[in-house]
Amino acid sequence: MSQGLRIGVAGLGTVGGGVVRLLASQADILEQRCGRRLELAAVSALEHDPELDLSAPRWFDDALALAADPEIDVVVELIGGADGIAKTVAEAAIANGKSLVTANKALIAHHGLELARAAEAAGVELCFEAAVAGGIPIIKALREGLAGNRLSRVYGILNGTCNYILTEMQESGRNFAGVLQEAQALGYAEADPSFDVDGVDAAHKLAILTSVAFGCPADLGAVHVEGIREISAIDIAYAAEFGYRIKLLAIAAKTERGIEQRVHPCLVAKNAPIAHVDGVFNAVVAEGDFIDQAIFEGHGAGRGPTASAVVSDLVDIARDNRLPAFGVPLENLVAHPLATMADHVCEYYVRLMVLDQPGVMADIAAILRDESVSIESVVQRGRAPGDVVPLIIITHDAREAVMGRVLGKFGQLEVVIEPPCLIRIETL
Amino acid sequence: MSQGLRIGVAGLGTVGGGVVRLLASQADILEQRCGRRLELAAVSALEHDPELDLSAPRWFDDALALAADPEIDVVVELIGGADGIAKTVAEAAIANGKSLVTANKALIAHHGLELARAAEAAGVELCFEAAVAGGIPIIKALREGLAGNRLSRVYGILNGTCNYILTEMQESGRNFAGVLQEAQALGYAEADPSFDVDGVDAAHKLAILTSVAFGCPADLGAVHVEGIREISAIDIAYAAEFGYRIKLLAIAAKTERGIEQRVHPCLVAKNAPIAHVDGVFNAVVAEGDFIDQAIFEGHGAGRGPTASAVVSDLVDIARDNRLPAFGVPLENLVAHPLATMADHVCEYYVRLMVLDQPGVMADIAAILRDESVSIESVVQRGRAPGDVVPLIIITHDAREAVMGRVLGKFGQLEVVIEPPCLIRIETL
Repeated sequence: MSQGLRIGVAGLGTVGGGVVRLLASQADILEQRCGRRLELAAVSALEHDPELDLSAPRWFDDALALAADPEIDVVVELIGGADGIAKTVAEAAIANGKSLVTANKALIAHHGLELARAAEAAGVELCFEAAVAGGIPIIKALREGLAGNRLSRVYGILNGTCNYILTEMQESGRNFAGVLQEAQALGYAEADPSFDVDGVDAAHKLAILTSVAFGCPADLGAVHVEGIREISAIDIAYAAEFGYRIKLLAIAAKTERGIEQRVHPCLVAKNAPIAHVDGVFNAVVAEGDFIDQAIFEGHGAGRGPTASAVVSDLVDIARDNRLPAFGVPLENLVAHPLATMADHVCEYYVRLMVLDQPGVMADIAAILRDESVSIESVVQRGRAPGDVVPLIIITHDAREAVMGRVLGKFGQLEVVIEPPCLIRIETL
Repeated sequence: MSQGLRIGVAGLGTVGGGVVRLLASQADILEQRCGRRLELAAVSALEHDPELDLSAPRWFDDALALAADPEIDVVVELIGGADGIAKTVAEAAIANGKSLVTANKALIAHHGLELARAAEAAGVELCFEAAVAGGIPIIKALREGLAGNRLSRVYGILNGTCNYILTEMQESGRNFAGVLQEAQALGYAEADPSFDVDGVDAAHKLAILTSVAFGCPADLGAVHVEGIREISAIDIAYAAEFGYRIKLLAIAAKTERGIEQRVHPCLVAKNAPIAHVDGVFNAVVAEGDFIDQAIFEGHGAGRGPTASAVVSDLVDIARDNRLPAFGVPLENLVAHPLATMADHVCEYYVRLMVLDQPGVMADIAAILRDESVSIESVVQRGRAPGDVVPLIIITHDAREAVMGRVLGKFGQLEVVIEPPCLIRIETL
């Protein structure tokens, strides 16, 4: 029997606690599968669940000291945050010749490339399966399982909080604010929800996915990001009427104009598989020239699924599998041209809140005509003369820059009494 | 740059042709991803698509000679069949110190263990990602991505032909025979469809999945197998009425009584994710203690997806990843106790074709009472006095052995004029 893999865990929050529990409860099967033991050798944390059994591993008050300990082979960084102590510990672990496993999407989205360079120079591994889509082994799938494909598009539901909120809005007919409050009470949303509901979390994950899928350096700044705060119950109801559901998608696509990275709410056809991914579930769809399409679905967060992903990286390391962090050896990473959002073309759903009075439709139609945007349908249900009603427009394909001008002109109409709401229709 | 990986392909049918095309069209990205070239060095086949470009590889009339060629590192066996030349070539390749990649589910289900033993002794790899679920990287997911979990159940739609037929029956209301004929005309079903529609193909795949999921030797003989020939349009319509869809599932489950392996039609709740997997698509659901549930969906057959799976194995080999064929080193494979089908417990859907006359329901209810099977519901729609009508029974949980006796007694009733149709309800 080979020597055990000596693991140091820095950070014992939800995920760290899950990793400690998993390593304890699955010690036997992990040893069977890897042919060697996965030993929790050391831990470090500012605070932790008092019920966690920490009698075996050595305790470090200082995570940096843990990262320097010569009796540790792998450091698992579960502290969180793009910079600060998480980054320092990650760098120190690699500098000290230890492989690094992390669930930290912000760290990888911001500093993944420099960490991978350091790891390559040190001859150690950098692994981050847990950083994207929790328990779904999507990094492995893209980097290994689908490695024979030229991927054309990778997209998914990468934020369970948003998907939970949108699903609840769909099922209950309630509005965003009320459902968010409930999600906070249930622990599905943070007290400060902006990281989730404004799309930032999904953008971090998308930047990583894009890098692995297309073999280019992660570029968080190139991600177009919109959240779900502006989605109303009206939009969900109208989308349903037109045969769609509303999902916050994170999309990386190879276009003739370069690589697109976008996080924004989308109307997706009801019969698309991803339209049925509800609640806190995540899903990723990979489209490639030989597989056509493969879909991966599971829990995108939570103690168990994320610990499962962290440990899958440890299993790879224990088996001495050496895998390129971003799908290709770093020397082969190529910065592809980036497509600007202004040139993105799709169909659009636009909701205007208008005063119900004669001539509104004519004004709106004239603006669309002047910008050469074709209308697929316009709906204004019900009458409320002199009162405010929603007016829904579905366009044919149009350029983003053009739609920006159209929305500006809509907003200037006196009869339009709220900023227009635009949702892109994604063809899946 | 390392030396290229020299590949010999034996068998140039649909999948072999796909592999040749993939290696040619993706040569650049494969080299980028692996850090070395994947070279098609040699081929052998009885016949092949004349449009296939075979100008570069050496040609062998005899696949055994290819398997012995010292200038080849890996043999890809795509001949097919559990025995005969496919097995001989596989054994020869391994004996000659070459890794073996195969898409041959029958070969692995029957002889996987002895091939893995030979490969381990020879220090080469045995890979068969393409043998199960085509383009879905499910072997990798179970063996690596979910390796931190104790899996409790793995189930899926593993035969696209059956799923296509059942989907068409569902959507058109037509019966099995007509839809099968159409599927044959479209090339979705073979002239002799029994391998698919009788569940044999799914059973091969399930035996492999079970082995990888639970770390036990594949045991094809332990799989309970039923096909879809007995499913009628009536069953699909009634299932829908009760909130179900009918799918041919392949299920491996760890129960208190041992490991269950079953391939049979199931009623699955309409809101289960797998209920929405339609047409020729395959899907696999893995349930484990840390991930809860992960779902993998994609094309289960066809040239492109299967070639993608074959090449993912070649990528692993090119990257020098050494992975245990069945999820654990062979010395750690454990033959778990097997659960007998007679002890399986579930709810059942039973359809009887009965003469519409007084007293039928009383006879049926008495039989169920005598065997202590509780009824969830009984439905006999419409009246046709003296004529034949379907009578549908949904039971509460009952043992398979008991239901066998119940069905025998039903069959003896004079008013029952066709053999009863029983479909298990799978709780997902």
